[in-house]
Amino acid sequence: MKKQPDNRAVPMSAPACPVPPTNYENILLAHGGGGKLTADLIEKLFLPAFGDPALDERHDGAEINIGRIRLAMTTDSFVVTPLFFPGGDIGRLAVYGTLNDLAMCGARPLFLSAAFIIEEGLPLKTVHQVADSMGKAAKSSGIRLITGDTKVIERKSGNDLFVTTTGIGIIEHGLKISPQSIMKGDKIILSGDIGRHGTAVMACREGFEFETTIESDCAPLWNQVEIMLRENIEIHCLRDLTRGGLATALVEIAETSGLRLEIEESLIPVSDQVAGACEILGLDPLYVANEGRFICFVPEKQAGAAIGLLRQSAPNAAIIGQATDTPKKDYSNIRVVMKTPLGTSRIIDRITGDQLPRIC
Amino acid sequence: MKKQPDNRAVPMSAPACPVPPTNYENILLAHGGGGKLTADLIEKLFLPAFGDPALDERHDGAEINIGRIRLAMTTDSFVVTPLFFPGGDIGRLAVYGTLNDLAMCGARPLFLSAAFIIEEGLPLKTVHQVADSMGKAAKSSGIRLITGDTKVIERKSGNDLFVTTTGIGIIEHGLKISPQSIMKGDKIILSGDIGRHGTAVMACREGFEFETTIESDCAPLWNQVEIMLRENIEIHCLRDLTRGGLATALVEIAETSGLRLEIEESLIPVSDQVAGACEILGLDPLYVANEGRFICFVPEKQAGAAIGLLRQSAPNAAIIGQATDTPKKDYSNIRVVMKTPLGTSRIIDRITGDQLPRIC
Repeated sequence: MKKQPDNRAVPMSAPACPVPPTNYENILLAHGGGGKLTADLIEKLFLPAFGDPALDERHDGAEINIGRIRLAMTTDSFVVTPLFFPGGDIGRLAVYGTLNDLAMCGARPLFLSAAFIIEEGLPLKTVHQVADSMGKAAKSSGIRLITGDTKVIERKSGNDLFVTTTGIGIIEHGLKISPQSIMKGDKIILSGDIGRHGTAVMACREGFEFETTIESDCAPLWNQVEIMLRENIEIHCLRDLTRGGLATALVEIAETSGLRLEIEESLIPVSDQVAGACEILGLDPLYVANEGRFICFVPEKQAGAAIGLLRQSAPNAAIIGQATDTPKKDYSNIRVVMKTPLGTSRIIDRITGDQLPRIC
Repeated sequence: MKKQPDNRAVPMSAPACPVPPTNYENILLAHGGGGKLTADLIEKLFLPAFGDPALDERHDGAEINIGRIRLAMTTDSFVVTPLFFPGGDIGRLAVYGTLNDLAMCGARPLFLSAAFIIEEGLPLKTVHQVADSMGKAAKSSGIRLITGDTKVIERKSGNDLFVTTTGIGIIEHGLKISPQSIMKGDKIILSGDIGRHGTAVMACREGFEFETTIESDCAPLWNQVEIMLRENIEIHCLRDLTRGGLATALVEIAETSGLRLEIEESLIPVSDQVAGACEILGLDPLYVANEGRFICFVPEKQAGAAIGLLRQSAPNAAIIGQATDTPKKDYSNIRVVMKTPLGTSRIIDRITGDQLPRIC
């Protein structure tokens, strides 16, 4: 971890997670956790069934061409509980989450659809608050909420609401922002301190109180991407650090790019409060979801310029590592390695179980 | 009802529905039923919160312009229970339902996203079957499933699955297909017999068995629209007859267009089996959801040509009425009137409660 006045180093250890049976026949919560089982479900079930080449990119969104126009399309369902948490709510999350997936394709967010599945018995006031929050988030970030749908399901707990947003953005540059574009030597930039969103939701859900309230980092990321594009930073890849956190994002990108990624623990900012809360909650900040942080792969010679631009709005942005050669033959499964402050190396892999159910 | 060898006339009567309290404070199932409360929720809550002019069109989808390209975007969540029913399943419904909403904008369906909310405990095999069905439906109708998302929620009944699809299509003609384009004198064409989907799902859910199984009419509608566009039929408005059925579609269109619509009961095809099942289930076919039927408003002089084209693939297509003048001052709330076989007039309005929860 990066030593900062308000940050402190914490040892990171692999979280203890239940290992699901290998021959599971039913959906487990972990299938939605962003880890190994989610990857399995996508790889073995959805991709073969849908069989579209756009899905093979393994990106947060799909790039589509209509005439000469390059668009990006992305969708996400939000099932976070509770609906309101410090720093945000399901509505804001649903707008920014999808906007951020567009931004991670390097696409200027344009249009958003919103589909609501509401449980019978939910107070109308709650629906109102969520819709209001969505409207405000959309307006303030320049994306238009243009179409929607509402369904109601029978009462169970009486307090559930699911929001699915789908976004369309336009790609106005000539870059191909994708794991496949990453080159050996590229620097990995992290846009800020990690672990806020997941810790805020978990602390709130479990009723934990800390000296200061941890707020979700839920925020739109397009402006930070746009400023780099405008200044001609040759961005090779972007990824926001949602479900599965920084660790899972790195593993996914390493697998798709075929490169080995090396990061340094001491360079990764984690705030004091988040580090402390993670210790108490038994979470590993590397795997905790963020909703306003991303990593960016840029050529080494532009890394300094990119950091300079990002720090205008993201003061904790930092270079945390680089893409190196292809993995050695004997270690072909080891794609992400983190150097610890003690000088040892920790292998970073996907999480097996589900650290944080219904976090987004 | 149109007398046909396999169809018989049945009297249509307003269904007996529970009237919700006027000062309801919680979400009721009827808020998702497509009737008065759904309209209320959209009108009083979502539209003011989202505040986008595209929403004021009150269409199934939104038209968006990117550069010189006209696109349509639409979204729908599907919560149908059971997941598999005669003639279809939630996957097929989710693909065709959204494809049809694009077709109703006069847009050629191009791309689809799919977001899954799966209940913990659902058999993986079920997810597989649904995904397979979606893949097949997409391929056979020429729309590409290009991006997706999966979330898992805690076990309650252990057998729930919700699918949200969002579609993008391209508008390649110069028409403005919308309720606002309807002219006095336009003929109303219905593309086939009504009531199959809702009756099939309800019969299956309630365990009713009839002499022959009623199958959902779940089917893609773009081809039927495309053939009319290709032959230069000047389509003024299209609407598929999903939640709330033919009656609700007519009321919504009449309200938005400001015109009075007149239809004739004897011209509306309902199959024998559907008519019989509706009697037993206490349903009014006019309000029962369809998933493969639409109405089309065309100039009187082209109505014959349009019917001819439609009947190539929809043998029961029929002209069922016309748009007339604006309502008389004294009867300004009466916008849709149906002439019964007895020569009397029945006023058609939105349904107050929820005839069929979780039908799509």
